[in-house]
Amino acid sequence: MPSARVAVIGAGAVGGYYGARLAEAGHDVRFLLRRDYAAAAADGLRLSSRLGDLHLPAPKIARTPAQLAEYGPVDWLLIGLKATALADLPSLAAPLLSPQTRVAALMNGLTIEREIASLLPGREIFGGMAFIGVNRGEPGQILHLEFGALNLGHLGDDPSQLAEAAALWRGSKVELRLEPSLLKARWEKLGWNIPFNGLCVIAGGAATDAVIGDPALRAAAARAIEEVGAAGNADLAADGQSVRIDIDSLRDRYLSQTAGMGAYRPSTTIDYIEGRRMEVEAIFEAPARRAAELGVPTPTIDLLAALIRRLGDRGDR
Amino acid sequence: MPSARVAVIGAGAVGGYYGARLAEAGHDVRFLLRRDYAAAAADGLRLSSRLGDLHLPAPKIARTPAQLAEYGPVDWLLIGLKATALADLPSLAAPLLSPQTRVAALMNGLTIEREIASLLPGREIFGGMAFIGVNRGEPGQILHLEFGALNLGHLGDDPSQLAEAAALWRGSKVELRLEPSLLKARWEKLGWNIPFNGLCVIAGGAATDAVIGDPALRAAAARAIEEVGAAGNADLAADGQSVRIDIDSLRDRYLSQTAGMGAYRPSTTIDYIEGRRMEVEAIFEAPARRAAELGVPTPTIDLLAALIRRLGDRGDR
Repeated sequence: MPSARVAVIGAGAVGGYYGARLAEAGHDVRFLLRRDYAAAAADGLRLSSRLGDLHLPAPKIARTPAQLAEYGPVDWLLIGLKATALADLPSLAAPLLSPQTRVAALMNGLTIEREIASLLPGREIFGGMAFIGVNRGEPGQILHLEFGALNLGHLGDDPSQLAEAAALWRGSKVELRLEPSLLKARWEKLGWNIPFNGLCVIAGGAATDAVIGDPALRAAAARAIEEVGAAGNADLAADGQSVRIDIDSLRDRYLSQTAGMGAYRPSTTIDYIEGRRMEVEAIFEAPARRAAELGVPTPTIDLLAALIRRLGDRGDR
Repeated sequence: MPSARVAVIGAGAVGGYYGARLAEAGHDVRFLLRRDYAAAAADGLRLSSRLGDLHLPAPKIARTPAQLAEYGPVDWLLIGLKATALADLPSLAAPLLSPQTRVAALMNGLTIEREIASLLPGREIFGGMAFIGVNRGEPGQILHLEFGALNLGHLGDDPSQLAEAAALWRGSKVELRLEPSLLKARWEKLGWNIPFNGLCVIAGGAATDAVIGDPALRAAAARAIEEVGAAGNADLAADGQSVRIDIDSLRDRYLSQTAGMGAYRPSTTIDYIEGRRMEVEAIFEAPARRAAELGVPTPTIDLLAALIRRLGDRGDR
């Protein structure tokens, strides 16, 4: 395809990673940066990755939405915001939109695409579930620690729209998987985030190896995955879909894949350690609420949600 | 009965409270104090309690085991040590023992009386389960916040020994309940300590009202009580006893009683907040291990044990 114009807003670790990989593939990518702006202006953006380090010496960057708008509208808007910052989206996005702009949420949250659709009505909305391990490094640097696919779905599950999205990523180093059911993909992603983001926080800011290495924590992770799977399958049935999550396979795969990740700290854990707001609503409470509506018991998810809400509300970290 | 000679070692909130109530009833009580010694030497010991405030203006106190020994041997040795300090017991107790000295553990721990029996062989050992809410106040002061019985059992379940113990407490303001089965009583006490000491810690140093007030935390507390009850009943069966814990009644009683306690911080939570060692082994790990030996699944207890072990090992609080 011809080079696409892409804007990344909320270019933290995930957004920055994927934006950089698209730039590497020849697309015209603009990054809205905050913490990393000064370093990127001085020395560009850097990826440290076993898939190949990357240095973008002169990326198109902006510190403010107005600066970003000066580059003009885009074909693709990639949103890497924290779910807790979603209210900022309309003002950030407005100057970047053309009638053809597609929007992809590289974010956590069961209903994030529907929320974005209500904030940016009349557009094609996609959801990207990033099964990678990325953390921010020094300013201007992203550490790509673990490998995995970008699982992409479309709000509406339209195969031709998925094909459009696939064209953007073709030729990049990103392993793309197309998800025929966005709802199923979102629940499956929560099946990783709920246990591992959650248990790492309540274990005091631990890394995934602490959860995998302790039989009781690992068992709690397995229970959480099973609960997420059961809630997801009830949600799929309620939505009239015939696909289902293979719960046993999901649990076994996540436990074995996570065992191979070493000491990785999920984003919520880093938020907790650094005293930032955690994505309690998007990752824990919204799914727990949906499960309750569906009549699916989720005691492990409920407990994690309650504990993380409390730890986040303490305000002393 | 004639006035008994009583020594309280490890006179924290629980030991200090019961020792003071025995002194009030006319017994000859000696207190081994550390943190409270200077205040008690200057101004005595004080209880603040809705059962009646108490001021002992000139209690028999000691700062060292040698000082305590100068008062001579005792009829009753009350042990209020943390389970984590039990190794100190033989040297603390040796100078106080006569052939007739009885020993009562006012401590947490499933097997604490058996451990004490091995440290002080050949004596009658009792276990006291304090269903009260007491915290330390200013130095020299104990705050008696919540009311409840002292449930007393005997290692050996000998009714005549229980009658001897009852005689000591007769005439005091302590509500005594005699427990025909020490093992059952210990498991029932764990049915409170495991959920509430545990959840208050992992909720970030919360008080009991936070656990009772949150549906998910309350549900986790209920599950933990049920698991403790099931493990306790398996242990009673393995011990050849015919008594059983009424699990539904225990759960409902603890939840409603705890709802009436307001914002009470269990001892483990205070240890956590103040950066002291927590009684992980006595309250959590030993019961979880025993349940596993008995083949009783205890996922909630296991999770609490693992989390509290981790939070205690972090060393930064």
